[in-house]
Amino acid sequence: MNPQRLHVEYPNSKLNADWVVGFVDGEGCFHIGINKNAGVKLGYQVLPELTVVQHQRDLQLLHQLRTFMKCGVVRRNHEDRFCWRVRKLNNLSEIILPFFEKHPLRSKKNVDFHKFAKVIRLMQKGEHLNPDGFQKILKIAASMNRQQSRDIRIKI
Amino acid sequence: MNPQRLHVEYPNSKLNADWVVGFVDGEGCFHIGINKNAGVKLGYQVLPELTVVQHQRDLQLLHQLRTFMKCGVVRRNHEDRFCWRVRKLNNLSEIILPFFEKHPLRSKKNVDFHKFAKVIRLMQKGEHLNPDGFQKILKIAASMNRQQSRDIRIKI
Repeated sequence: MNPQRLHVEYPNSKLNADWVVGFVDGEGCFHIGINKNAGVKLGYQVLPELTVVQHQRDLQLLHQLRTFMKCGVVRRNHEDRFCWRVRKLNNLSEIILPFFEKHPLRSKKNVDFHKFAKVIRLMQKGEHLNPDGFQKILKIAASMNRQQSRDIRIKI
Repeated sequence: MNPQRLHVEYPNSKLNADWVVGFVDGEGCFHIGINKNAGVKLGYQVLPELTVVQHQRDLQLLHQLRTFMKCGVVRRNHEDRFCWRVRKLNNLSEIILPFFEKHPLRSKKNVDFHKFAKVIRLMQKGEHLNPDGFQKILKIAASMNRQQSRDIRIKI
């Protein structure tokens, strides 16, 4: 068993949708990772993820989020910080997107969420597997998380 | 008019208590400042405050918090960061404490909140104005916001 994987259940969790939206407005991050991977067709892999990072003192909250959303994993992030993270494409498309479409974020993070959702929909259509679709995704990813000025240098 | 004071009203704000709790769990800070002030009896002033800091892109959210809570001010914090902050003792005791007692924070920030509430109650009884009460408040303040190891060197 991976020692980073900590299974703790909080069956009496009483999180509710509005609290989750508020907390994700504050602490959540919708991110599109672009990783080098020689094993995939274009040489780069698109890795969308939703993460919420907390100090270990609030590890229990991360497990409650996982229980509430019925997806994702809780892992050590860095030193005394842990994260709840959702990476599986079907969990993102079937659980995370519908949730935040039904319960919109109130901060400007909602702009990132909509870009994130766009990338997920493109990936569902397999667009990340062809050069044009990949470039489109790359452009969206580069405009997220206040990285508007980040240069896009990946050539395929 | 203080140029840091920005009055913007969002009458159609639809914040709700659970969202506010989630957001404060993520972004809020309950802090007890201890400031030198020759004009007060003991030479030090106790300044409790609740703050929520955001990048200016979410300035509107800070105004919505103020509108929702009916107290506090929105000010520039530092460069492109703004804060909603509540400092008035009667707003803290009559609005903020009852709100978070009715709608408890779910993170460990709730521990800080309860220490914060204890200081407010002591101040309401004027305990900050006598040496023993002041030392008691100082000890509580030093144990908050993960400052457990901070030394207490203020002698009065």
